[in-house]
Amino acid sequence: MWTRRVRSCFSCSRSCSSAPTDRSDQLRSFLELCMDRHYVSPGETNSDLFQRGLSCSYGPLGTELRRNLLEQWWHSVTRGRGQVFGISTLSISQEQVGLQVVECELVKQILDQHKSKEELIQEIQLLLQRSPTVRTNLLTGALQQFVPSLELVNRKLPFGLAETGLCFQSSISNSCLFSAEITQTSLVWFCSPRTSSQWLDHWTRQRLKWWKKFALSPSDFSSIEVPKQELEDAASRGVRILYNFPWGSEALETLWSRGNAELLHSLSDVLQCRDGQKSVPHVVSISGNMDRGVMAFLSNSLQQLKREEGRQKLQQRKVLKLHPVLAPVKVALNIGRGPAVELRQVCGGLLQEFLEAKIFTWPGYLETVGLLPRQYDEMGVLFSVVISENTLENGLVQVRSRDTTIRETMHISELRNFLSRYISAAENI
Amino acid sequence: MWTRRVRSCFSCSRSCSSAPTDRSDQLRSFLELCMDRHYVSPGETNSDLFQRGLSCSYGPLGTELRRNLLEQWWHSVTRGRGQVFGISTLSISQEQVGLQVVECELVKQILDQHKSKEELIQEIQLLLQRSPTVRTNLLTGALQQFVPSLELVNRKLPFGLAETGLCFQSSISNSCLFSAEITQTSLVWFCSPRTSSQWLDHWTRQRLKWWKKFALSPSDFSSIEVPKQELEDAASRGVRILYNFPWGSEALETLWSRGNAELLHSLSDVLQCRDGQKSVPHVVSISGNMDRGVMAFLSNSLQQLKREEGRQKLQQRKVLKLHPVLAPVKVALNIGRGPAVELRQVCGGLLQEFLEAKIFTWPGYLETVGLLPRQYDEMGVLFSVVISENTLENGLVQVRSRDTTIRETMHISELRNFLSRYISAAENI
Repeated sequence: MWTRRVRSCFSCSRSCSSAPTDRSDQLRSFLELCMDRHYVSPGETNSDLFQRGLSCSYGPLGTELRRNLLEQWWHSVTRGRGQVFGISTLSISQEQVGLQVVECELVKQILDQHKSKEELIQEIQLLLQRSPTVRTNLLTGALQQFVPSLELVNRKLPFGLAETGLCFQSSISNSCLFSAEITQTSLVWFCSPRTSSQWLDHWTRQRLKWWKKFALSPSDFSSIEVPKQELEDAASRGVRILYNFPWGSEALETLWSRGNAELLHSLSDVLQCRDGQKSVPHVVSISGNMDRGVMAFLSNSLQQLKREEGRQKLQQRKVLKLHPVLAPVKVALNIGRGPAVELRQVCGGLLQEFLEAKIFTWPGYLETVGLLPRQYDEMGVLFSVVISENTLENGLVQVRSRDTTIRETMHISELRNFLSRYISAAENI
Repeated sequence: MWTRRVRSCFSCSRSCSSAPTDRSDQLRSFLELCMDRHYVSPGETNSDLFQRGLSCSYGPLGTELRRNLLEQWWHSVTRGRGQVFGISTLSISQEQVGLQVVECELVKQILDQHKSKEELIQEIQLLLQRSPTVRTNLLTGALQQFVPSLELVNRKLPFGLAETGLCFQSSISNSCLFSAEITQTSLVWFCSPRTSSQWLDHWTRQRLKWWKKFALSPSDFSSIEVPKQELEDAASRGVRILYNFPWGSEALETLWSRGNAELLHSLSDVLQCRDGQKSVPHVVSISGNMDRGVMAFLSNSLQQLKREEGRQKLQQRKVLKLHPVLAPVKVALNIGRGPAVELRQVCGGLLQEFLEAKIFTWPGYLETVGLLPRQYDEMGVLFSVVISENTLENGLVQVRSRDTTIRETMHISELRNFLSRYISAAENI
């Protein structure tokens, strides 16, 4: 009854066309929600990293959301066709540019020795030469795996190498180093020169379709050709996949048709592949920022619903309508009226059953104060289940849906199948 | 016919009790197998890293094996009980010890400026102070997440924080820095002081059971109490989970009962938790090396079967009998006699069907030269399927099992269910 009455006076307001002050309010309230609901760990530095599309410290829900996103990416890229192979390369290498890893103690030792300035400079230069660097992208590693992979595909093009992992970035301001890490995804696609532009288009379509698949509002995801003047050195074409955040568009993924200069550079001898033309393959690179991806889906799925109550009091209901496949918590188990010890036992049994079926379950019944439906909505929990004395009598439970707010009654034995079917149906659309 | 005859003269020889030269031969042949069969990328440095239990560059099969292992770890730890939450912390921090990340260009700028020795030293010291460090373990990050997590569990003990990720290590030889990365798993368990020793025992049993679950020869996994003199500073007890490699025992996972000194240190104010005693919880840490875990399961599952043939020629058959859940490739699709174009089409359809069911499939039919059963055995492929002209006529395919080498005939429509059931049956034992 309550839900029906309230739902009928909801008015949906999405948050795109608003004034600048509104926007910063929105951003602040969005970040607060992410922190309060265990997506992002608290702290200003952390929230700042998150906002800039960099890796931050994630809470349990953010950790699970990023895992789900990476899993879906991996599945769509490596399992979609037989010619993509997953690889895993090192994040530190012996290249001499960029961010170097040095042992603090070694530098201190050098500085402490009473040497001449010239010797000092020489020793530090030597130390730098011997120190490894951390990677800034996954492309370099994939190019180095080209030759070993040729055997896998019997020297036949096209094929691709997929990888996900941390990459490091640095920016210098006031001669102070600011280092950041990004959870990247990378597909490096090797193809014949004449087909590279078609492959770029193919992968752009595929990738955009993938992003839109999980969106509540797919039109916020778009692709745009990179202007000629912004093309990277070796690239002949580039495409960016953008997300239209309330505070502006940002790139989630970038596709480059890179030619073969970098591949040639990474190989000492020129290789010949069977594809009629006996030429060195061209490379199409597709690299994504999954930290920004997490933010995009959180932002995209947040619905703020205004609710008018009796005395013209305006209330807001916030719901994270994350796609069932991405939603970190699929179901919350709570107890209602009745003998707490027995009800908790029933919940414990259900929890085990769900977890074995790999349905991430929130043990709401464990808390001395259970969460409110409003809080589960803000966490994006698909369903919340209430086990009460009624359940002990006739096995019936109450299941509330995040998206409809309707409460259904269901037999406890049907729950697991209901949830599995709901999630897999959403996955296969 | 052939398989029956050959199988009857197999004699199994496991590779534990052998002379030192035999052992180094075994190690070499093991590493060669890992490289030839796309577990580990080729190269001496790479094979050296792998052998030392460090992260190396993995081929597609190694990448998938490590993914499967991490997935199983995550599932067993976070899904086993309601009180473990997954987190994801940063791999670079502002702590001032250990491996620092410095921007190469900044150091060069300092060295190039014509300054006095004193200024030079000062500037380099300042740079080091401002530079971040890379993490060497996942414990520190988890301790920092203790306070935000308290809210999650309503300040109730015990609970745990789980994380997987790269950690960095350095060793210095000849004042040259050797840096390495390790794929670590970490469970940090917060409990009341009086229960910490019991929890250490509980987690030791759980973890050892987990390792043995996937083993072909479970007795090679064991646990051992860390001797008093090797205890870490804060720890009151420690347990190592070891794998008995042919070349000696190595630790896969280490469990410490750490007391609460480190937690107190990481908190500025003393916290009080509800658990009767109002004391700061004790910490039990469980950290695993999953790169060594990959090597342990590869080593454990390698069976070398000697086969005597007619003219007393001795042949070896190597089989990687990886657990069905861990095996990277579940099934290989190949074509036999018949019209190649049509057979490949059938294979393509099956591939799609399997990949959608998340069954990692080897597209053997894509290669101009398909792999031999022997090669699939060395890759640890559970089943290899042959699609031939027979299939086009009556829908029957030939399915060869890695473990029994028996070839069965099956209807093509039964394949997917057969494979899914086989894998999930193995998972739930």
